[in-house]
Amino acid sequence: MNFLNELKKWIEHNREKVREDYFRFLRFKSISANPEYASELKQCADWVHGYISKHTTLKAEVIPTEGYPLIYAEDLKAGKGAPTVLMYGHYDVQPVDPIELWKSDPFEPTIRDGKVYARGAVDDKGQIFYAITALRAWKELGKAFPVNVKLCVEGEEESSSLGLSKILPKLKEKFKTDSLLVVDFDQYDAETPALSLGARGIFAMEVTLTGSKSDLHSGVHGGMAYNPNKALVQLLSKLWDEQGRVAVKGFYDEVLQPSKEEMAQFAFRYDEKSYKKEFEVSALGGELGCTLAENNSFRPTLEINGIGGGYTGAGFKTVIPAHASAKISCRLVPNQDPEKLAHLIGDFLKKHVTPGMKIAINYLGGEPAFRGRFDSLLAKAVTLASNEVMGKPCKNILCGASIPIVAKMIRELKCEVVGMGYGLPTDDIHAPNEHFDFHRFEKGFLTVARTIELL
Amino acid sequence: MNFLNELKKWIEHNREKVREDYFRFLRFKSISANPEYASELKQCADWVHGYISKHTTLKAEVIPTEGYPLIYAEDLKAGKGAPTVLMYGHYDVQPVDPIELWKSDPFEPTIRDGKVYARGAVDDKGQIFYAITALRAWKELGKAFPVNVKLCVEGEEESSSLGLSKILPKLKEKFKTDSLLVVDFDQYDAETPALSLGARGIFAMEVTLTGSKSDLHSGVHGGMAYNPNKALVQLLSKLWDEQGRVAVKGFYDEVLQPSKEEMAQFAFRYDEKSYKKEFEVSALGGELGCTLAENNSFRPTLEINGIGGGYTGAGFKTVIPAHASAKISCRLVPNQDPEKLAHLIGDFLKKHVTPGMKIAINYLGGEPAFRGRFDSLLAKAVTLASNEVMGKPCKNILCGASIPIVAKMIRELKCEVVGMGYGLPTDDIHAPNEHFDFHRFEKGFLTVARTIELL
Repeated sequence: MNFLNELKKWIEHNREKVREDYFRFLRFKSISANPEYASELKQCADWVHGYISKHTTLKAEVIPTEGYPLIYAEDLKAGKGAPTVLMYGHYDVQPVDPIELWKSDPFEPTIRDGKVYARGAVDDKGQIFYAITALRAWKELGKAFPVNVKLCVEGEEESSSLGLSKILPKLKEKFKTDSLLVVDFDQYDAETPALSLGARGIFAMEVTLTGSKSDLHSGVHGGMAYNPNKALVQLLSKLWDEQGRVAVKGFYDEVLQPSKEEMAQFAFRYDEKSYKKEFEVSALGGELGCTLAENNSFRPTLEINGIGGGYTGAGFKTVIPAHASAKISCRLVPNQDPEKLAHLIGDFLKKHVTPGMKIAINYLGGEPAFRGRFDSLLAKAVTLASNEVMGKPCKNILCGASIPIVAKMIRELKCEVVGMGYGLPTDDIHAPNEHFDFHRFEKGFLTVARTIELL
Repeated sequence: MNFLNELKKWIEHNREKVREDYFRFLRFKSISANPEYASELKQCADWVHGYISKHTTLKAEVIPTEGYPLIYAEDLKAGKGAPTVLMYGHYDVQPVDPIELWKSDPFEPTIRDGKVYARGAVDDKGQIFYAITALRAWKELGKAFPVNVKLCVEGEEESSSLGLSKILPKLKEKFKTDSLLVVDFDQYDAETPALSLGARGIFAMEVTLTGSKSDLHSGVHGGMAYNPNKALVQLLSKLWDEQGRVAVKGFYDEVLQPSKEEMAQFAFRYDEKSYKKEFEVSALGGELGCTLAENNSFRPTLEINGIGGGYTGAGFKTVIPAHASAKISCRLVPNQDPEKLAHLIGDFLKKHVTPGMKIAINYLGGEPAFRGRFDSLLAKAVTLASNEVMGKPCKNILCGASIPIVAKMIRELKCEVVGMGYGLPTDDIHAPNEHFDFHRFEKGFLTVARTIELL
């Protein structure tokens, strides 16, 4: 019996146990963006450490960072001559707001129509857990890895990976690898696997305007105090020109526009019609004159991720608020420098704000985009494993999203990189009712386990 | 002993009891804007009814409306030959958000530095309660009113007075009066009383943009879906021109610009310097080329009272929200029609929104501005009483805020109107830490009680 069939049998026999453990993992409220969940994150890290120690041949440790701890594990029995692969994933998850739109408790995994609904069901607990399950199957099937296997599961991917970023230079020796397998990506579509060969960079910032020492009555003060809500909409509206391009001078200066041929090496999921239909989107964003694929993969973007000022509850409150603020982030393409661009935007905001209005900018860090090679050893192994598991040829794709720490890791570790995963854009990651299929969970499990054999 | 001295003695002896009752009144969470407080509003209405019945000579009743009930009371023993005065106030209060900025529980009146901190301490529980206390003193001092006294305390002033508005035509006979005394205004400054001879009109609306069926990941979708936050800031920023004027065609068409002489009849509290200092305001609003007084009293305004979209909590969430919305209100000057203008603004928003973005507008109603006469019987009585109580001549002022129901009442009842009150712009009404002085409470009490004698 070939190994893929052995793996299928193994998951058949262990399905219930694996799901139980997956559900346990999902129950930790490991929201790294919100400090009130700190103890949940620590418990979750300990659980992951215990799980890997118990169920795999990897020697695991919890490594403290300035932020939340990470779990590192390794099995180097293949020896110095063999190549090394470092798998990466994260145990933290996005916040759950708006909580009222969830149909079930985001931290009590619930099965509806054969899908698992929970925050982190896909991103990234679901994906990293099928990778860990693959390592478990190798152990339980009594097989020894042909390559050195390392694993890093961090706890701050959804909030800038600051802890791992800071400690990374010290972990360079430990993390040393030929290639990095990032298990946090999507497949091409429900039937077709994908090799993710890059993601956009990102930086984020918050801008807060203050107009007075306290909230003011909008009648008593109307016409006297400049309303920070007004100043904020006026300011933010200046960030784009009429072509949908970011109006900040210099924003596009370092963009390397790829040729049509280079772009054609990557598959793209949608055309305008299918995209609009799938997400009930009736107004398209991005730059006028660019295709959907260009705007999503080869052009940087600027988004207002949150805006808030004054009274937004039920009913009405006639207030001129003291403050109004916005959370802004940009997605970057290769060759763009996040720090430089963040300050370009910050300076633009300071320059264009209503005179007299107080402005405070909080820079939240960022990382550049990255690209992997089509023909690396790992890329070839993942492609072949995916083709076998899915019975359809793997497509090369780019991810519009960002995994900032990955850019940092490949720079520090000077290694190849490949992204894999079985997420789909319809999984509602980062949104209410995130969900995953058991079916795709098992495809992921098989792909990781078979990739290790192929290396 | 003249009546004013009798009243001073009475309050001296009854101070503790009166404060206790005032505090009881403040403890009702009577937030009319938020339906979850419905039962508190009803309990509060019953309490006011019981209090008036027990402590004054007025015969009181609770009148149900489509919204929250109102309390009506009357003492018509002065007879048909005597004039009638109808006093108006409200028992409902503004919401308390942002709750975290309150230094003490908004519904547990707390004394700090001799001031009472509570939601409604001034607006309008504090003010209407000193008026009721004045009626109580008349009873306890064994005096009969020289005029017919009517009283209306409603429960929806902070949320458009819809209940009273709808039932008003039916109550026309009952409410019939020569003059309306609105006890919900400010004094000129801490030493100087004021006669309020007008307030601005208002209308309010909510606008909601929808860009997709659910929240989207701002990386995965960035460049593809048009962000409703972006569409909203772009749309709202179009509402004003560079002169700070509302850019909606027709908005100023009906404004009757008064002459310099007409404007000079009214005192105005601030110059730019004193205003900026008092409220720590560094950017002034309103139209360029207009004085502070003009912008606050004689020009209409448009404010964004609330704006919200995406993630605004602690940390960061890389989301393109499905929806973004804003609460907008305008203050109007005499001769402007709220319904017409609300639709003018609504149509402007619909016309200028990003093509394809779904827009929904919820019109929340409004009322025009009103003006009273300097030389009405009631105006003269309040002026004289205030002069005596404060020992300083009363100034005529206009209120930048709105009491929509008052405009409706004077139209329906065809009566004179005077606004009085001992609020100050520093009382933080409609804001966190609303507060009132006992000292001013008692000035108000004396003024109302003495006004009745003077009529």
